Amino acid sequence: MIFTKPTIPAGTRDFTPPEMIRRNYIFSNIREVFKLFGFLPIETPAMENLTTLLGKYGEEGDKLLFRILNSGDFLGKIDQNLLIKKESHRLSNSISERGLRYDLTVPFARFVVQHRNEINFPFKRYQIQPVWRADRPQKGRYREFYQCDVDTIGSNSLLNEVELIKIIDMIFNRLQIRVNIKLNNRKILAGIAEVIGEADKITEITIALDKIDKIGKEKVIEELIHRGIQNESIIKLNPLFEMSGSTVEKISFLEKYLVDSTTGCSGINELKTVFGLLSTYEIKNSVELDLTLARGLNYYTGAIIEVKAIDMEIGSVCGGGRYDDLTGIFGMPGVSGVGISFGADRIYDVMQHLNIFPSEAESTTQIMFVNFGEKETEALLPLLSKLRLAGVSTEIYPDPVKFQKQLGFANANHIPFVALVGEQELAKGLVTLKNMNAGSQEQLTIDKILERFKASSI
Amino acid sequence: MIFTKPTIPAGTRDFTPPEMIRRNYIFSNIREVFKLFGFLPIETPAMENLTTLLGKYGEEGDKLLFRILNSGDFLGKIDQNLLIKKESHRLSNSISERGLRYDLTVPFARFVVQHRNEINFPFKRYQIQPVWRADRPQKGRYREFYQCDVDTIGSNSLLNEVELIKIIDMIFNRLQIRVNIKLNNRKILAGIAEVIGEADKITEITIALDKIDKIGKEKVIEELIHRGIQNESIIKLNPLFEMSGSTVEKISFLEKYLVDSTTGCSGINELKTVFGLLSTYEIKNSVELDLTLARGLNYYTGAIIEVKAIDMEIGSVCGGGRYDDLTGIFGMPGVSGVGISFGADRIYDVMQHLNIFPSEAESTTQIMFVNFGEKETEALLPLLSKLRLAGVSTEIYPDPVKFQKQLGFANANHIPFVALVGEQELAKGLVTLKNMNAGSQEQLTIDKILERFKASSI
Repeated sequence: MIFTKPTIPAGTRDFTPPEMIRRNYIFSNIREVFKLFGFLPIETPAMENLTTLLGKYGEEGDKLLFRILNSGDFLGKIDQNLLIKKESHRLSNSISERGLRYDLTVPFARFVVQHRNEINFPFKRYQIQPVWRADRPQKGRYREFYQCDVDTIGSNSLLNEVELIKIIDMIFNRLQIRVNIKLNNRKILAGIAEVIGEADKITEITIALDKIDKIGKEKVIEELIHRGIQNESIIKLNPLFEMSGSTVEKISFLEKYLVDSTTGCSGINELKTVFGLLSTYEIKNSVELDLTLARGLNYYTGAIIEVKAIDMEIGSVCGGGRYDDLTGIFGMPGVSGVGISFGADRIYDVMQHLNIFPSEAESTTQIMFVNFGEKETEALLPLLSKLRLAGVSTEIYPDPVKFQKQLGFANANHIPFVALVGEQELAKGLVTLKNMNAGSQEQLTIDKILERFKASSI
Repeated sequence: MIFTKPTIPAGTRDFTPPEMIRRNYIFSNIREVFKLFGFLPIETPAMENLTTLLGKYGEEGDKLLFRILNSGDFLGKIDQNLLIKKESHRLSNSISERGLRYDLTVPFARFVVQHRNEINFPFKRYQIQPVWRADRPQKGRYREFYQCDVDTIGSNSLLNEVELIKIIDMIFNRLQIRVNIKLNNRKILAGIAEVIGEADKITEITIALDKIDKIGKEKVIEELIHRGIQNESIIKLNPLFEMSGSTVEKISFLEKYLVDSTTGCSGINELKTVFGLLSTYEIKNSVELDLTLARGLNYYTGAIIEVKAIDMEIGSVCGGGRYDDLTGIFGMPGVSGVGISFGADRIYDVMQHLNIFPSEAESTTQIMFVNFGEKETEALLPLLSKLRLAGVSTEIYPDPVKFQKQLGFANANHIPFVALVGEQELAKGLVTLKNMNAGSQEQLTIDKILERFKASSI
């Protein structure tokens, strides 16, 4: 037999222990904060019926779904002509009824409708699971990646937006990543489009405005003309180009600018409520109004949220907004929700780049006992038990091999303490404890060891 | 548009919050114990190349693999004749190159070979991920389910077996499930077959022996004859039928019985070492030798381990053993390993049946504040912040709706405490705290609330 080195599919990843420990550090911080705010976990299956998934992500999205081949004799009932014509697209719908989850939003909507009678609304749920997309793999873009979603559904209260922003603040504080939290509101964008007489051109206007810092006012105007905005509309837009100052100043400017648009005024009132509540909430990161935020304009109906890392140039690390009809696609209309999603892969990249993973995210074992042979091992087992019952991660090297080899293992696995209990130590009831970082060592009684590590593990 | 109630594929499951909280209780106990023993986490992709998976689970297993349809124009290069003949089986290999993970063992073997230069051997890894099998769905059998595997690879030391048994003991102690831990050793079974002159009939002999309690000695002998065991061999087997007593007595009996088989003696020595080490290790559950344990006879080469719940009739809740050539299938021979796998779904069923989930596995939020309106909410936010910073899961009902509705929500979500801060309380700096289980209520200062919940969350 000839063996080739095994590989995994393009765009997927193995996670080795050092990567897993750091990833788990991120996930458990995110999960803990979700729980601290009273959000409840759900999980949905990796596979959904294609009827659930198709048509929800646009034509491009449909192409990016991973489809599961039906089991058994899947060709049996297929029309011969379809096969001869080699119509891959039409055939795939006949030989495949299930697809892999593409995001957590559509499965969540399906879940809410399916379990509507078991759910207590307002439903505050979080969901941390992988999703799959048949995208062309490239640096930083994977075919399997985790999403961490948190949503409140069935409540119109703006307190929900405020709680989500506080969640963002607390998570990034914990991870020690400095961020800018940017807020926008679709109603304000709609108001602007209305006020300048281009109600149907929200997206074009927002996208053009987004470029003002990069390309300047002149070029933006060129682009607006190119995108079919009337001259007199552009003139009405002019005051917006000049808008500056703090968020408070911007809001007060917009309040006058949008006075003739009911939608616009309602957007302003929402912003004022949100910023008002935030001001009593000790937010550590900056939260600012950003009119150019155009994320998800085709489904968000109120707040739009985006979070950028300050100390590294990278896409957004978190984003979301309010949607008014998530479950309508499954026949349950009029349920409003608001949610955000954290990008664990980007957060990982930021933390690696800034080298801010704490040392507890580098290892799991706190103390490794050297293996001197069967007699010494047997004497050690009760101590191992006690340490573990006290919550101290403890291991003993499994084979009585050379000391240097065992030390090398501890070193490679970043284990901070190595304990030696040879014949001499055994006779005296002592343990020689080696601090692998400091290089120092000392002799302690077994009770002392227990005491010291117990304290450090709490 | 007509909507039909959305569903999920047969054999898959949604997990609602109450289920998730209980499942997470099981998973986090398992994970914590793995960590306490110094095992390191890995994760592998949901999809593997079919070349990795095919032929590893027998012909039946190949049929149970979920295959991913290739993306794009997958029929383009397919031979027309193959299509016209409708050969589903041959075609599926041409239009699908990837499949979903069927277990965690083969991906682990692939991982070890692929990352051999990054791994520090002996490699102690754990892996908790879902697997997928296109089995016919039935009660208790799912097409998507989690496996919790823990293995040490690259060490022959029997200390590894002992550590795994201690892990079993600790996990089931934590979950408060009483279990019988059953041990066998393939070398002993091989020794028995050798001693009676039927070296190639290990499996037949073990399976027949397994039935002695159910069908009695006479029927077992009938079955052995039926399975082609010679008469004189069956006579030699006779003393085994009479074997009884404690594990120590059984081992001492087998030591004499197997004296002429090198393999058998080696198996006995292994058992003696394992039971010897276990005796100093304060194992709370019973560990016994069970010669009829035939689990995985075609791949286990030494220890065989199986765990049964005492208080509920259900299949094994954990099992495993030693294998000598896991990575050989991927071209890296001679690496010995030993591992076990916990069945989270069965453990869940046992705990539900015995009603032993602790109350902390019923809810996440510890205290819910009633929403009396914007002014009261604004005043409360700093307190919410403080409670969360102290590790207390806290929420506020998002809308200022009727008190009874808010109370009903807390009740439905099993939230143990509800706090009321209305206008009166606000003026006095007091909080009315309602104990939802006891039905009692009391007024406390904000500092007192903080103090009480802080203490309870540690």
